[in-house]
Parts: sequence; C-alpha cells; structure tokens
Amino acid sequence: MKKIHFIRFTAITLCLLAGIQAKSQQSAEADVIRKIFNEALTSYEAYHNLEWLCKNTAGRICGRPEAAEAVEFTRQLMNKMKLDSVWLQPIMVKSWDRGEKEVARIVSEKFGTIAVPSCALGWSVGTGDPGLSARVVEVKSLDELKSKSGNEIEGRIVFFNQPMKQTNLDTFTSYGETVWQRTDGPVEAGKLGAIGCVIRSMSIEIDDFPHTGITRYADDVKPIPAIAISTKAAEMLSDYLTVDSNLYFFFRTTCLAGPDVPSFNVIGEIRGSAFPNEIITIGGHLDAWDIAEGANDDGGGCIQSIEVLRLLQAAGIRPLHTIRAVMFMDEEVAQRGGQMYAKEAAAKGEKHIAALESDRGVFQPKALTVTGNPGQMKKLAEWQPLFDPYDIKLISGGGGADVGPLKKIYPKILLMGIIPEDQRYFKLHHAASDTFEQVDRREMQMGAAGIAALVYLYDKFGL
Amino acid sequence: MKKIHFIRFTAITLCLLAGIQAKSQQSAEADVIRKIFNEALTSYEAYHNLEWLCKNTAGRICGRPEAAEAVEFTRQLMNKMKLDSVWLQPIMVKSWDRGEKEVARIVSEKFGTIAVPSCALGWSVGTGDPGLSARVVEVKSLDELKSKSGNEIEGRIVFFNQPMKQTNLDTFTSYGETVWQRTDGPVEAGKLGAIGCVIRSMSIEIDDFPHTGITRYADDVKPIPAIAISTKAAEMLSDYLTVDSNLYFFFRTTCLAGPDVPSFNVIGEIRGSAFPNEIITIGGHLDAWDIAEGANDDGGGCIQSIEVLRLLQAAGIRPLHTIRAVMFMDEEVAQRGGQMYAKEAAAKGEKHIAALESDRGVFQPKALTVTGNPGQMKKLAEWQPLFDPYDIKLISGGGGADVGPLKKIYPKILLMGIIPEDQRYFKLHHAASDTFEQVDRREMQMGAAGIAALVYLYDKFGL
Repeated sequence: MKKIHFIRFTAITLCLLAGIQAKSQQSAEADVIRKIFNEALTSYEAYHNLEWLCKNTAGRICGRPEAAEAVEFTRQLMNKMKLDSVWLQPIMVKSWDRGEKEVARIVSEKFGTIAVPSCALGWSVGTGDPGLSARVVEVKSLDELKSKSGNEIEGRIVFFNQPMKQTNLDTFTSYGETVWQRTDGPVEAGKLGAIGCVIRSMSIEIDDFPHTGITRYADDVKPIPAIAISTKAAEMLSDYLTVDSNLYFFFRTTCLAGPDVPSFNVIGEIRGSAFPNEIITIGGHLDAWDIAEGANDDGGGCIQSIEVLRLLQAAGIRPLHTIRAVMFMDEEVAQRGGQMYAKEAAAKGEKHIAALESDRGVFQPKALTVTGNPGQMKKLAEWQPLFDPYDIKLISGGGGADVGPLKKIYPKILLMGIIPEDQRYFKLHHAASDTFEQVDRREMQMGAAGIAALVYLYDKFGL
Repeated sequence: MKKIHFIRFTAITLCLLAGIQAKSQQSAEADVIRKIFNEALTSYEAYHNLEWLCKNTAGRICGRPEAAEAVEFTRQLMNKMKLDSVWLQPIMVKSWDRGEKEVARIVSEKFGTIAVPSCALGWSVGTGDPGLSARVVEVKSLDELKSKSGNEIEGRIVFFNQPMKQTNLDTFTSYGETVWQRTDGPVEAGKLGAIGCVIRSMSIEIDDFPHTGITRYADDVKPIPAIAISTKAAEMLSDYLTVDSNLYFFFRTTCLAGPDVPSFNVIGEIRGSAFPNEIITIGGHLDAWDIAEGANDDGGGCIQSIEVLRLLQAAGIRPLHTIRAVMFMDEEVAQRGGQMYAKEAAAKGEKHIAALESDRGVFQPKALTVTGNPGQMKKLAEWQPLFDPYDIKLISGGGGADVGPLKKIYPKILLMGIIPEDQRYFKLHHAASDTFEQVDRREMQMGAAGIAALVYLYDKFGL
C-alpha cells in the first residue's frame, strides 16, 4: 500500500512538475514571440524596402529590365543583412512586351462610340497596327460558349462576362470560380472560330481598373488577341448589348512575345546550427505584372520573407535548421522559378522539410496554415495559445505556386501558408491600383512576425 | 409506472421538438442574416454616398458651412428612403476658425531653420500675426512636466512628446494612454507659465501628417497657443534638442473661436410595428475635423447607420421596435448633439432600449459588443453561431461619446458597439490622410450588415 501510495504521489508530482515545466516553457516561448512581434511593430525597414521596390521596379514582370532591377535590389538587401549566404539562382524566363497603350471602344449606332479602360492579357498576341473590330457574343460560362453554334462565334469577338461573386465571404473562392475566363477563355473562343476575346476583369469591385494576368494558348489552336476591360466597362457593354446586339467592339494591341531571356531567383539563408542540410523555405514571388507596382502581389510577400530572417536575427535566434528567404521569379507566367528551385534542391541532395509562400496580399493576418497529418495538426493546436494574443488562428492548409514543385520531390515536406484579411485583395490584384499606398505597415509586419513565430517554433520543436 | 413512462416520453419528445424547432429557428434566422449580408456586399449605394460626403463636405467640423452641407445631404438621403420619419434636431454648437495655414519651424544655430508639418489643435487660441518663438522644454509625461521647476517652463514652449505605443496590439489603448497630451497638455503647461505648446501628433505611425483634435482650456488658466506637429517632425525635434538644447521653435497660428451657432442632429426612423415608443438608436457622428474628409472618423459610421435602415428595408424586415439612424453633430468638440438627443428623449417620454455608435473606423468588423448583464451575455452567446460565417465575435463592451448621455437617463439601456480591425485607424484619425480612398467598400458593408443583423435579432428576440 505504501509503495502504491508513493508511486501515485510520485506520478502526481511528476505530472505537476511536467505541467509546470510545460507552462513555463510556454511562457518562455510566449516571451520570444512577443519579442518578434515587438520588433516587427516598431521597425520601418521592411516597409521602406517595399516602398523602394514598388516605386523603382514597378512592372517587374519576368524578362523585363524592372525584374532585373528587383533581383539586384533584393540581393543587395540580403547582402547587407549578414546572412550566411546570399545567391542568385539562374533561370530562363519567357519575355513579352505590351507595346503601345491599348485602345478599346464600343461602337454602337444607338449609343455612339465609347472608349473603355482596357489592357491586353499577359502573353496575348497583338491585333497588329490596324486593330480589330467585330460583333460581340457575350457568354457567362464555358457551357454557354460551347452551346453556341459555330456561326454564332465565327468571326466574332467573344465577351466573357462572368462576374466574381461578391457574396462569397472568401474572395479567393470567387477568383477560383471565374479565372478560367482569362486563362482558358481565349483558347476556347479560338477553337470555335472567334477572332478576338474581351474578358471582364477579374476584380471583386465594380470600378475603372482593367486587371491583366496570364492567358494560355494551346499549340493546336490559332491564338487570338485578348484584352481585359474594367468591370464597369463590362457592365456597360453587357447593358448595351441587350439593347443593341449588333454593336461592334474595336480594340488595338501591339503586344508581342519575345525570346526566352535569363533571370534569377534570389535566395538568402541563415544556416542551421544543428541540421544545416534541412531547409525551411519562406518565399514570395518577385515578379509583378507590367502595369502594377505589385505591392500586394507580391512585393509585400517577398519583403515579408526577408523580414522573417531579420526578425529571427533581431530576436537573437540561431535556428537549428537552415532558414531561407526566396524571391521566386516568374510566378505570374510559367512558374519557372519555383520549378528550378525544386529541381536544383533535388540535384544538390538538399533535404527540404517545410516551405511557406506569402502570396495573398499583406493585409492583417487571420491565420497561419499547415498541411499536416492529424498528429501534426494536434501538436500545432498546442501552439495556438501562443498566437491568441495576436488574433492569428493556426489551421489546416498551405501551398503556393512556387513551393508546390517541392512537394513533388519531397512528399513529406510540410507546406505552410499565411491567410491575411482578403476583402481588399481582388480589387488590386494585377491592376495599376496595387500600389505601395495600399499597404499598411502594421498589417504587413503582423504577417511577417506571425510567419517568423511559426518558423521559430517549427525549427525548435518540429511538428 | 405507465403514467411516468408516458410523462417521460412526452418530455423527451417535447425537448426533441423544442430542439428541432430551435434549430430550424436558427436556420431561418441564418437565412435572414445571409440576406442582409448579401445585400450589403452587392450594393454600392452606401459607398457612393460616403464618397459624396467626403468629397463635398470635407472639413465639416461643427459650426462650419461644410457641416451644414453634411446635415442637408444626409437629411435628403434619408428623405429618399421612404422612412417613417426624418427630422432635424436643433442644437447650438461652438464655432472656431483655423485661419491661415499654420507655419512652424525649428530654428537652431547648429541645424539651421527647418519647417515642419503642423496644424493648430482644435479650439486653440492663435499666436496672432507675429507668431511665437521660444526655447523648448520636452516632456514625455505629466509627472515629468510637474517635476520641472517654474523657471524651466516660464516663457518657454512645452513640447509634449510621448509616442503612441506601437507594440500595443489594440491601438485604442495606445491612444488612451497618450491623448492627454493634446486634451490637457496646453492647460497644464499654461499653469506653469509656458507661452506655447507643441504636441507630437496622436498617430500610431511615423509620418508627415499632423493630426489635430480638441484641446481643453480651463477657466482659471490663461490659454496658450497649441499646435500638433507630425510624428516625424517630433522625432526630429527631439533628436535636435539632445544636441542643441538652446534651439528655438517658432510657430504662427491665426485661429480664432467664434460665437455659438445653430446646427442639427439628423435623425431618420423606421417606426416599430409593436412598440413604437421603444427605440433602438444606431448612430455615427457627422462632424469631422476641418483638415480631413473624415471618411473613417466618422463619415463611414454615419453612412453605416443609414445603411442599417436600408438593409432592414431591403430584407423586408418590419421591426417591432422603432429603429433610428442618428447623425450626431459635434462629437469632436463638446458632444452637444449626443447631449441634446438624450435630453429631448427624456422630455418627450421616449423609451430607449438600446443604442450603438459606430465610431472606430469602418474597417473589417472583428466584433459586435453588448454591455449586458450575465443573463443577457448568455443569451447573446446563443447568437454566436449566426455570426460565425462572417467571422464576427459577439463580446462584452459598448458605448460611445454620443450614446453615453442616454445611459444617464436610461440606466437599463443596452449599449452596443462595433469593433473593426484597427491597425490603420490611428494613422488616419484627425488628419488629412483620412480620405474616402482609405475605405474599402466590402469592409464597410460587412460592418453595416453586422450591425443590421444584431439589430434584427435584438428587435425580434430581445436580450
């Protein structure tokens, strides 16, 4: 009996001690994380760097001189940080030139001639000098397009006008539902004999900004010129068509694809003190559309990635694993940066254990995500109290266009993510409105600090 | 036994039925609330009205013609809505004129003469035409000021330079900790013989915008001229003082208080179908500082209040109680609008059961608050699932400068509130940077819909 009592007593004591230890451990980690957030909230370095990037390398789509400027700027930024290593990873990227400012007009006997805000889709072919004029067939779905008979489409301009659903609370869902119009619309219209394509801008708001973005032609379909018009113009064109179905649409673009040209991913790392060959990648993509400063898509994500390294340094954290900030090139077009990064990792025999890409804007962070198995998610949930003060949820999810290729090579890699508030994102995305001024320093820094805190915990305790 | 079994059977059945009923009731309410949010997210009416208010009545501080314009505009807005009643409630407000653009300079033998961005505090006395020049005493707390000996302050300019704490996650806490400098600094400095007062702008960011706001003199202390300088200028002045403590500060203001003048609260209501004399007030304040468009402080709050009525109408809800939208005048200066509203309510024998003021910006809503007793809060918690889809928490809290006076007359009134995301608020508050462009339509509308949903449930079920 006595022995049992003693064992029970000891067990309870040990549990209590473990509890106390766990609690004081939590409290020590809370202090480190508070330090990271305090540094983030009081520093202007990242914000000023984003300003420089936006104002001096606006329009840095891959293959353009602005992209080369951005490569050099971020390389220099990281060089100054006393990281263990900073280097450029060469890739070949596609090139394309938008040419002269686009012209687009509705020409109606009833309404007269109305110029509308427009921009060519990325990698569209041009109309050539005389421009292109034709009658318009409006469709709101691929089924609707396919239900048309050949001679309804032949020689016409197809006008894709499926709006982003404003009632979705997750605006990324609305984007996912509609972006096919831009990526696949021109090729689908081309298959049916259309001679041009007008796309309602992928914007959650009704306003005057045209939004660009990649369109993808098929080898076996003759490419047709494609432009986006502002959502307000799309509403107008649709209204006019109901009254005057014979109206013409005219547009002129002189864009032209060029040859592949050299470019780079920009990489900086803090080498792991215990496991230098085990790598945690934090990235954003450095390229941004040629009509935009690309503050939220995705200059902010790049600058946050660099800031994560700085915040770890400033908090005096020497990580066990190697932590990298990667500015991926060419996310917007062919994701060659992400592919090369994964390919070279495999070739060098690196071991990639986790990766996160910040590419949903740099607004107030709502959640950090992990694509873990149930056991990992359970362990992650134990960290939730550490993020409660910052109102950041730890939930399931992750991935990103540039870290996706790593998953193919390292099936066990833990993909992570950050989900910021998204009400504003899709009114700015791929448009001239995505300026530095749209970014709030505190919001961006809260995101960087959140990522840094997650990286810190994962590096130290694993999942 | 049989009887007992039957009773038990019946009780269980009733419980189950009640459960099913409660569930289908919840689901019906969820549908109504979804309808409210859908209408909010797809409508541009409120947003366009806010644009008009910001662009055509900027600087609508009480007593100014812009305030009268704003009164007329919102009256007309509500008149067009087919409400049961729209009226103006007369009040007398203070008036004040900022005069010519302020001039402020640091004059140092070491650093030369440097102009700094500045604005007179609201209702400050002017320096008069020649301006005012004196040596500077910097303090960061009231204790520090009071610890100075008389001749350290006499004839000097006191420079209040306590920064808003950037590491607070709730920026309203930072404001609460520092705003004494602006409200009470000049009178405290005046007591000790200072001849002028320079205040570090109440801004969470380091930038070039001076932020104004009310200062309060005391009857028994000679008022001294007071200006705010931008946070960046405050940092510079502080740095320079460490090197050249003998530098002079010069400023010139020609502001002047005027007589009391007539103005109005603007009120619109949907009369209650069952309890017309029981009133739920939703309000914002119509006045905004004379250097600002006042988009977030508080044009947005006013427009949200009107939008709440429109959303109820659009959802086909005929409330049981009377629901009012009130544009309070004079929140920024003497809160006479709020006081008159409460006074007249008492005089008319109205019964006010709940009131909410939206005056924390119109960013993404994080929470709706209620100052209820434990029983009320328990009932409120039952509504939480209805707000989960919108990521809005129902928590304890409430109040507001203009609805506060109602509480004195109606001690049982339920004060409610809305808490939006606040990272951006205090870089805009009372400054020229608080423009329409800072407001996102979806975020503002999410707030209006959240308030409308809370009003709908409270009107129908009470708390």
